[in-house]
Amino acid sequence: MRILVFNAGSSSLKFGLFDTGNGAERHLLKAGYDRFRDGGCDLRWSTDDGRGGQGRVPLADLGAAIAAVPGFLAEQGFDWIDAVGHRIAHGGAGFAAPAPLDDTTLPEIEALTPLAPLHNPANLAAVALARATWPEVPQYGVFDTSFHLTNPAFATTYAVPEVWRQAGLRRFGFHGTSHKYVALRAAEVIGQPLDRLQVISCHLGNGASVCAINRGRSMDSSMGLTPLEGLVMGTRSGDVDPGAFGYLSRELGLSIPQIEAALYNDSGLKALTGSPDMRDAEDRAAAGDAAAQLAIEIYAYRARKYIGAYAAAMGGVDAIVFTGGIGENSASMRRRICDGLEFMGVTLDHDRNARVDLADRAAPELQAWGARVRVIVTETAEQLQIAREVAQAMAQPVRVALTVPVAVSARHVHLSQAHVEALFGPGATLTAEFPLRQPGNFGAHQKVTVEGPKGRFENVRVLGPTRGRTQIEVSRTDTFVLGIDAPVRLSGDLDGTPRVRLVGPAGQVETDGLIIAARHIHMHPDDAARWGLTDGQEVEVEVAGTGRGITFAHTVVRIQKDAFTEMHIDTDEANAGGIVAGADGALVGPGLCR
Amino acid sequence: MRILVFNAGSSSLKFGLFDTGNGAERHLLKAGYDRFRDGGCDLRWSTDDGRGGQGRVPLADLGAAIAAVPGFLAEQGFDWIDAVGHRIAHGGAGFAAPAPLDDTTLPEIEALTPLAPLHNPANLAAVALARATWPEVPQYGVFDTSFHLTNPAFATTYAVPEVWRQAGLRRFGFHGTSHKYVALRAAEVIGQPLDRLQVISCHLGNGASVCAINRGRSMDSSMGLTPLEGLVMGTRSGDVDPGAFGYLSRELGLSIPQIEAALYNDSGLKALTGSPDMRDAEDRAAAGDAAAQLAIEIYAYRARKYIGAYAAAMGGVDAIVFTGGIGENSASMRRRICDGLEFMGVTLDHDRNARVDLADRAAPELQAWGARVRVIVTETAEQLQIAREVAQAMAQPVRVALTVPVAVSARHVHLSQAHVEALFGPGATLTAEFPLRQPGNFGAHQKVTVEGPKGRFENVRVLGPTRGRTQIEVSRTDTFVLGIDAPVRLSGDLDGTPRVRLVGPAGQVETDGLIIAARHIHMHPDDAARWGLTDGQEVEVEVAGTGRGITFAHTVVRIQKDAFTEMHIDTDEANAGGIVAGADGALVGPGLCR
Repeated sequence: MRILVFNAGSSSLKFGLFDTGNGAERHLLKAGYDRFRDGGCDLRWSTDDGRGGQGRVPLADLGAAIAAVPGFLAEQGFDWIDAVGHRIAHGGAGFAAPAPLDDTTLPEIEALTPLAPLHNPANLAAVALARATWPEVPQYGVFDTSFHLTNPAFATTYAVPEVWRQAGLRRFGFHGTSHKYVALRAAEVIGQPLDRLQVISCHLGNGASVCAINRGRSMDSSMGLTPLEGLVMGTRSGDVDPGAFGYLSRELGLSIPQIEAALYNDSGLKALTGSPDMRDAEDRAAAGDAAAQLAIEIYAYRARKYIGAYAAAMGGVDAIVFTGGIGENSASMRRRICDGLEFMGVTLDHDRNARVDLADRAAPELQAWGARVRVIVTETAEQLQIAREVAQAMAQPVRVALTVPVAVSARHVHLSQAHVEALFGPGATLTAEFPLRQPGNFGAHQKVTVEGPKGRFENVRVLGPTRGRTQIEVSRTDTFVLGIDAPVRLSGDLDGTPRVRLVGPAGQVETDGLIIAARHIHMHPDDAARWGLTDGQEVEVEVAGTGRGITFAHTVVRIQKDAFTEMHIDTDEANAGGIVAGADGALVGPGLCR
Repeated sequence: MRILVFNAGSSSLKFGLFDTGNGAERHLLKAGYDRFRDGGCDLRWSTDDGRGGQGRVPLADLGAAIAAVPGFLAEQGFDWIDAVGHRIAHGGAGFAAPAPLDDTTLPEIEALTPLAPLHNPANLAAVALARATWPEVPQYGVFDTSFHLTNPAFATTYAVPEVWRQAGLRRFGFHGTSHKYVALRAAEVIGQPLDRLQVISCHLGNGASVCAINRGRSMDSSMGLTPLEGLVMGTRSGDVDPGAFGYLSRELGLSIPQIEAALYNDSGLKALTGSPDMRDAEDRAAAGDAAAQLAIEIYAYRARKYIGAYAAAMGGVDAIVFTGGIGENSASMRRRICDGLEFMGVTLDHDRNARVDLADRAAPELQAWGARVRVIVTETAEQLQIAREVAQAMAQPVRVALTVPVAVSARHVHLSQAHVEALFGPGATLTAEFPLRQPGNFGAHQKVTVEGPKGRFENVRVLGPTRGRTQIEVSRTDTFVLGIDAPVRLSGDLDGTPRVRLVGPAGQVETDGLIIAARHIHMHPDDAARWGLTDGQEVEVEVAGTGRGITFAHTVVRIQKDAFTEMHIDTDEANAGGIVAGADGALVGPGLCR
């Protein structure tokens, strides 16, 4: 599939042509128009078979440049495209995936302009021109914010008045396409699926952000409502005390528009050194310029703090990935950021760090031998990632809706045999009181007390048979009664889970294994085969007709021999959906349709 | 020495009477007036010999309350005081230590009101009343900001336009007296001097901040220019995207004063749950209130991220200390914050955490057996710390100024014998080219190349004799040529220092030991004895008459047998002071006077 990708700014247009068919990926053409003035602009282009050029062309503005693209492509021998992908800066809370750009979605995107007053209008102007130029070709928007819509509410919520939050004040995060691409690239290099890894991605370019990618999903990133928050950037300030506005207003008589404009355009490296370019700062610092030295220290220090913060957020880190102009090219900045992180397992190999070659999409590992955390550097490829996502969106087959019964799990405990004996006495075994629908499983006669620092639950049912490892499943509300924060995990995925005390008639144990069960569907292999689903795949499930209709995202399909096909949710989820008993859910997620 | 300590707010007055004589510390009396209305106020008081009371008294305002203090003290049998200590919120960049409050300093403090428009005026009103009440008694101000004035510039500098920074926009940090007290208390419990420890102090009260205390000095804290930045608090927002102001202005038509007032008074827990009190949030969360659950998660998550950030900032952490109402009393909040930090060596003992008793200034350790990082909880005692500091300030003896010669060290290398042989060949030894002033030391014939990821220095002089461990001393500017961030350390204090490559004629080694030498004075024991100085003591050294007069703070006295008494600085320091050769420095620091 041949996809043309546009990244349009207010004064430049970059585009690329990609072939994404059949597992191979070719970046056929890369090109850019910029420096529009005096009725002309600069064009630079190259193809993957070695052709290229640059020079001044008589195109007066962005509209003329886009209108010229079909002719330019034909000239280079590319006379058809299957789709156009557009980079769109802000997709708000609604666009979690690539969206076809049509008369339904475009007004929704336009309504988001207040969130990205500088970027979205330029993106949308290019969309309008491209739709006029290729009226028959499907056009998709891929949003910088989408990747971060998996951030939990505790990471996106500012502690500000409710009316402000209702007005849309929340953290979004940007550079999502870049963070996603480099995290996937890092997982390829490591040779493990991204959803088993904890990755911190540092996109250090003219704009800069750090992203915590926890088991495949963005958990947090340093940009917030706007691209102002977070790291020091070329001309943007990054983090500033919100009290600064009042101070600047009282002391210097500045208004909000004046302060905001300066934070966007006259801050960051430019404010600290006079130049927005880190290369200038590094040269000046080496020559003894104290302001440039300080700027480099501030830059590295803030990045290092975010890495520490995100390791703490995720409960650890497997890999740190550097990308963007500074992340790719400055060995000394990578070193400044990583030095001092030995305590968390980060140790650079200084030779590898000094000799990085990124040709051919290389992603070299820079950590010292035996270091616990991998350090990887790679070029970002946002356009390629946009092309991939457009191709995936177009490839979704149409299926009919499927239904599964929905069962509600109250809090319960699975025990290891050792813990059965510790709680109920030597030689004790679980005895069945009633059978469960999953073959071989039962509710046991035995019950235990579950205790946390804040509270306890008595008479919590043990389910049998015994397992290799004890697992305690509670609802999110239950965790606030216990006073223990528990992660949402699939059954059996217990490494690093919190410890909790279990008390039985014959003794007590303190054990890890406390989880909030991730919603899942037990599925018989025959059903899975019939419906084209694979083990571990995520689907959405819509439960309607309960008075409180709800759609559950990220529902994991677990294919098990002899399973009774059934969705399991917990009591919080049941309450949220008004689901009592005997409800059915319709699968509506990726790979399916309503 | 008997010291009365005032902590005056806009609508309340707390005070305490302390006896700090002869190594013992007694909190003789604690008392507070608040709820001024209808011509009266509430008084609550207690003494350390078991007396106390509470009730309504006919004092109409703060002035009347302060005027009544001498009579109240006499009634309780306390008929004299030696000094009054006042808590002052903001001391700006100028007040690094307790200051006598007199006609010189008070106008300087008043000039800082724009930095703390809510707090400083209330503090200063109490100072004026106390000076009128006790005209003969010395009065000292102890500043919430002083402890943080050791923060390096890279931690205090916002990346904003220079004119804003010149107008005073920088990070300060608050709660300094509390962070200092609990860090000292933690060091007592651990049984090591604070200047050997890396401590993260979490003051979680109605106001809340986290502080990184690196080897005895505050390095960073979560509050910035104002007490708005950082953690979620009772009614304050903590961190917010600086882009929020523009958004709120455009979307809701709000002004800077409106936004600022809401960030101070209607944000934080109050905005998220309706109540500024964490106890309310915890109760509601356990009852299933989703907003309260989210508030608790946000609160813990932000604190956990700061702990990770500060561990990264310091390059590790030995102890995390909790204090303040929430830090002291909420076992489940301590647990939420610490859970997930196992990767950096933090593991709670859940029994100890659940059963904390803080009576009699206890500071129990809560970490699990074998955990690398200690977790300590203790009550804060800001008034006691203020009394201590006032007593220390009053106890400073008067001494005459002393002078020492000042020598400038260029970059150089000390080598271990093993590295001598690796660089210069098997069996090689250092040979003297010229003697140094410290007996037995010499400049060797041998020179090496020092290499970093960004650049290199050739012909760097080796100094002899050999040492047990190789040490490379460079200036701060040199670190930007090498592209390696090096810490300021005393000679020989090399654990955790960065690695660098040394190249000699016969080979090369990669070794740790790269430092910027901390300024120090080699001192003969006789000189030290005559001047009353102890090994490791810090003094200030003023170098005048060089055309670029300068005072070096934190200069460490190193007493060594046979030493030639002499101060050593590096080339950056010499350049900063315009110091060439043969300069003398006058000792002017703590324990001394000009």
